[in-house]
Amino acid sequence: MIQSFDVQGGPELGFENLPKLRAKLKALKLDGFLIPHDDEYQNEYLPACNERLMWASGYTGSAGSAVVMHDRAAIFVDGRYTLQVRSQVDGDLYEYCSVENNGQTHWLKANVTKSQTIGYDPKLHSPRGLQRLKAAVESAGGTLKAVKTNPIDSAWLDRPAPPAAKVLIQPLRLAGENIEDKTTRIGTIIANANADCALITAPASIAWLLNIRGGDVACTPLPLSTALIHKDGSVDLYINPEKIEPNVRAHLGNKIAIHAEPEIDTGLARLNGKTVIVDPAVSSSWYFENLKSAGAKILQAADPIAIPKACKNDVELEGTAQAHIRDGAAVVKFLHWLDTEAQSGEFDEIAAVQKLEGFRAATGQLKDLSFETISGAGANGAIVHYRVSQATTAKLSKGSLFLVDSGGQYVDGTTDITRTVPIGSPSAEMRHNFTLVLKGHIALARVCFPPGTSGHQLDALARAPLWQEGLDYDHGTGHGVGVFLGVHEGPQRIAKTPNTVALRPGMIVSNEPGFYKAGEYGIRIENLQYVHEVHTADETKRAMLGFKTLTLAPLHKGLIETASLTQAERDYVDSYHSRVWQELSPLVESDVKLWLEEACKPLIISSKIS
Amino acid sequence: MIQSFDVQGGPELGFENLPKLRAKLKALKLDGFLIPHDDEYQNEYLPACNERLMWASGYTGSAGSAVVMHDRAAIFVDGRYTLQVRSQVDGDLYEYCSVENNGQTHWLKANVTKSQTIGYDPKLHSPRGLQRLKAAVESAGGTLKAVKTNPIDSAWLDRPAPPAAKVLIQPLRLAGENIEDKTTRIGTIIANANADCALITAPASIAWLLNIRGGDVACTPLPLSTALIHKDGSVDLYINPEKIEPNVRAHLGNKIAIHAEPEIDTGLARLNGKTVIVDPAVSSSWYFENLKSAGAKILQAADPIAIPKACKNDVELEGTAQAHIRDGAAVVKFLHWLDTEAQSGEFDEIAAVQKLEGFRAATGQLKDLSFETISGAGANGAIVHYRVSQATTAKLSKGSLFLVDSGGQYVDGTTDITRTVPIGSPSAEMRHNFTLVLKGHIALARVCFPPGTSGHQLDALARAPLWQEGLDYDHGTGHGVGVFLGVHEGPQRIAKTPNTVALRPGMIVSNEPGFYKAGEYGIRIENLQYVHEVHTADETKRAMLGFKTLTLAPLHKGLIETASLTQAERDYVDSYHSRVWQELSPLVESDVKLWLEEACKPLIISSKIS
Repeated sequence: MIQSFDVQGGPELGFENLPKLRAKLKALKLDGFLIPHDDEYQNEYLPACNERLMWASGYTGSAGSAVVMHDRAAIFVDGRYTLQVRSQVDGDLYEYCSVENNGQTHWLKANVTKSQTIGYDPKLHSPRGLQRLKAAVESAGGTLKAVKTNPIDSAWLDRPAPPAAKVLIQPLRLAGENIEDKTTRIGTIIANANADCALITAPASIAWLLNIRGGDVACTPLPLSTALIHKDGSVDLYINPEKIEPNVRAHLGNKIAIHAEPEIDTGLARLNGKTVIVDPAVSSSWYFENLKSAGAKILQAADPIAIPKACKNDVELEGTAQAHIRDGAAVVKFLHWLDTEAQSGEFDEIAAVQKLEGFRAATGQLKDLSFETISGAGANGAIVHYRVSQATTAKLSKGSLFLVDSGGQYVDGTTDITRTVPIGSPSAEMRHNFTLVLKGHIALARVCFPPGTSGHQLDALARAPLWQEGLDYDHGTGHGVGVFLGVHEGPQRIAKTPNTVALRPGMIVSNEPGFYKAGEYGIRIENLQYVHEVHTADETKRAMLGFKTLTLAPLHKGLIETASLTQAERDYVDSYHSRVWQELSPLVESDVKLWLEEACKPLIISSKIS
Repeated sequence: MIQSFDVQGGPELGFENLPKLRAKLKALKLDGFLIPHDDEYQNEYLPACNERLMWASGYTGSAGSAVVMHDRAAIFVDGRYTLQVRSQVDGDLYEYCSVENNGQTHWLKANVTKSQTIGYDPKLHSPRGLQRLKAAVESAGGTLKAVKTNPIDSAWLDRPAPPAAKVLIQPLRLAGENIEDKTTRIGTIIANANADCALITAPASIAWLLNIRGGDVACTPLPLSTALIHKDGSVDLYINPEKIEPNVRAHLGNKIAIHAEPEIDTGLARLNGKTVIVDPAVSSSWYFENLKSAGAKILQAADPIAIPKACKNDVELEGTAQAHIRDGAAVVKFLHWLDTEAQSGEFDEIAAVQKLEGFRAATGQLKDLSFETISGAGANGAIVHYRVSQATTAKLSKGSLFLVDSGGQYVDGTTDITRTVPIGSPSAEMRHNFTLVLKGHIALARVCFPPGTSGHQLDALARAPLWQEGLDYDHGTGHGVGVFLGVHEGPQRIAKTPNTVALRPGMIVSNEPGFYKAGEYGIRIENLQYVHEVHTADETKRAMLGFKTLTLAPLHKGLIETASLTQAERDYVDSYHSRVWQELSPLVESDVKLWLEEACKPLIISSKIS
């Protein structure tokens, strides 16, 4: 089993470690210290050695921060984590604060006193975020001071070693473009921006550029590393050399120079007089300060690899399609189990996760989960960022809905699928609200749009049927997805928030509207889909892009209020199911096949026509 | 007749006036001069004395700019005006350039030579626009220099006097909120922003604040003026005192001090040490420079009156509804004429405009048109910003579509409506494309959305049916509308471009998707609608806003492909038509009434069900 159900974090961590941290602060003559959740790689998943916020507080949420002073401390989380922080962090040690409405800067203004010095680790803060914190501390009469060594790392005696998983080659037959072509292409982008080189601190960008993968963090096959790519396409790669075996060294070729990670200091120092692209959204303040000291000219711009990586080539799309067929067959076996055995009401959320992981593992090709499966029975389904553990696992009981959001990492592609299924008989309200979510999902699957359109322009299509009835969901509608890389990647996004990155051919996005009734049930329907050209421009029509769906698994017809769908919506469901049957039926047998055939039959139209 | 069909502008203006301008530039030792279209009030309509770009070039488009050097000149227009500029401006005098892709800055970089001095009138440029122009001139080695008096004004010997129409009172029974309450409300907004006062250079904002109207420009009842509003709600109004009669003076009360317009200099000079809100989107560089010289602290922020003015109160909404009923009855008489007499194919665009203006004038309450009627027969309908003149007027001939976009100014409200009608039998393609536009219009009329939603999030709803078939339109979907004020007002907007101003209850917007087939026909359907609360939040539902339609006039059923509409769309059309019949039938008689009854009958469903 990959997924663990242990209870993580908890107040005892804060009780044990906060005094140790304060002792170190005293030795450093610091009156306080800032602890962000993120590490210097700004990934979704941290290696164990970088779980500093958890070590100091007990909190394990995927976002948050803390400020520790000698006589007080505060922890800042967003609305998703207000319940979780109260269960994991002791309120006597940390004041619970909201990150919204500049919670952290307000707290600093109110709690820092004149001439106090607050430390921070410059490798862990973005320049913009730091500026706001600095202004807050200074307005209170205090000073913000960068530390050379993080006091948490000194105080954390049993801190795990940094991960050192061997780097793996992503072969050309899966990557579709060789290193030489990729580095030349990015070098040209850098030259066209009148820059000399770009600093790349996002390991996923480096993995794409050099056709390598790794195993340093959970759920994303990343080789933690940093790189400088020059306008001639040559690359300085800063990575623990122990991770590089001779075959990988040969694969990289002689345009890629390998240096130990700490040598990035001297790499940056050599950039005097050079113009260097740095992305302030992903590279920390430490890099900006070092480049300034070196006399480099900083060009703040988006990571030049982000868009090329997001636009998948035909080989990557074909690999991803294969991964989705393989994964879809495993999901179908699981959905069959849910629709038969699990209807007894006797299984729990952990059993469901185990069952699903088992079907995926049985493909023989599962490398990892793409994230911890969200397995939400009944009321737990309404918790958008729910994590099932031994402490929370609930029964899939009759008369409830079960929401399962999961994905697999395969060498040819990354999957992410959410299905909602009834256990026993769903209520009319459940079916009605599922149908509203489905209408939004279909609208976003079917839409065509002109080149230049960004995700925020399409977001309302997925919400409009819910809005019409006074309902909505508090998360984005779609995120980018990598190929055997991060299941959440940018720069494209479908959400309410404006995003100026246009959707381009080859970009993979999720389509995942939902509805959550607190304390009762959650509904979400998620397929991955990629952008492709639907119309090429001709004399009478304009070029239009659209989406092609990658994810293959039936939608539960028992939750569809067929009469509320338009003819076009019914056609969509029937044609999707017919495709699911054609692609997956050769991969399943006997009972499962019979079940799939039934699950993929056309919708039956009842009396009401709309 | 209000509308004129004279040919305006033309190359002879450039031939006559360009040498006069160059002589003035020589006297001022300037090597060139920048001529924007806008004047210091940044309104859509200029008084005749401020038509400087037309005077110097012959160009009459509503947007554009020119640069005049001694041996060359260039004129910059956007895609809407590429044909028009070629007919109005001589290519030997002015190089035709595109304003897109920084056309003007590129031209300046390429054409200004070292140590040349280019003049500009600081009252006519926004600080941001000026910054880009300055950078371009300086990168070419030149200097940008502000002039005290615009050389065009000196060279233009028969320049009309500035307008001095008498200021009119907008009575409380139409404004719904008295001056005292409005000025106190805006004063509080200023105080809450930690400012001392706000500079208001938009005459529409001043008109709203002081419940006054004027007659200084066409189509918008504006009193040209400038104001300072202080945090205590007192106002310094800078306006030609001849415009203020004793009754208006009494209406304004003693919290409003009146000064002659040129005294704004001394008004600004008194603001030493004060924090002043200035909107860089509407106030020119001249104000910023003067405030800086005075030692004032500038707080760049949106005009604090913009949102309060945009959110109409119940009295304004009721007045606007009455104006739409009155205007709708006039439009119905016109549509009846189009559907009967004008079917002969013998009338032209000018005749149609005259007919429509006649019906509006016959209400006895028409104060002005809200803009020049766009009367586009056949291929002229495909020109989005078409202006009919004696030179262009075309016949409404059989087998074509006629597009008419028009509006009236009434003391209680401003209207804006577009209808497209067939002359003779429309083709199947015309009916199909009209139906796509209608589907988008209905989607935007019916949508509900949560508070906080901006127009760019809803724009795609109006385009999706066209996008699905490879079609689109190159204009926004909706603009704000005033109450007996500008027919195009901000800050809300429904368009592809991101706009962070959320739609709030009381805001009026147009809903006007279209489709244009160059050289053949134009289709547009436009109603005004206002934002209102549809659901208030309760235990199970969230608060939702929606739109209520103001405009009343039938949509031509001969252009609707009924079978392509969903049941919900058909219900929308039928219920809209039933409302049109109920509201307008008491206002029309005999033939027109019979016609209206027929025009408002339910759609007949043919075989195909969707």
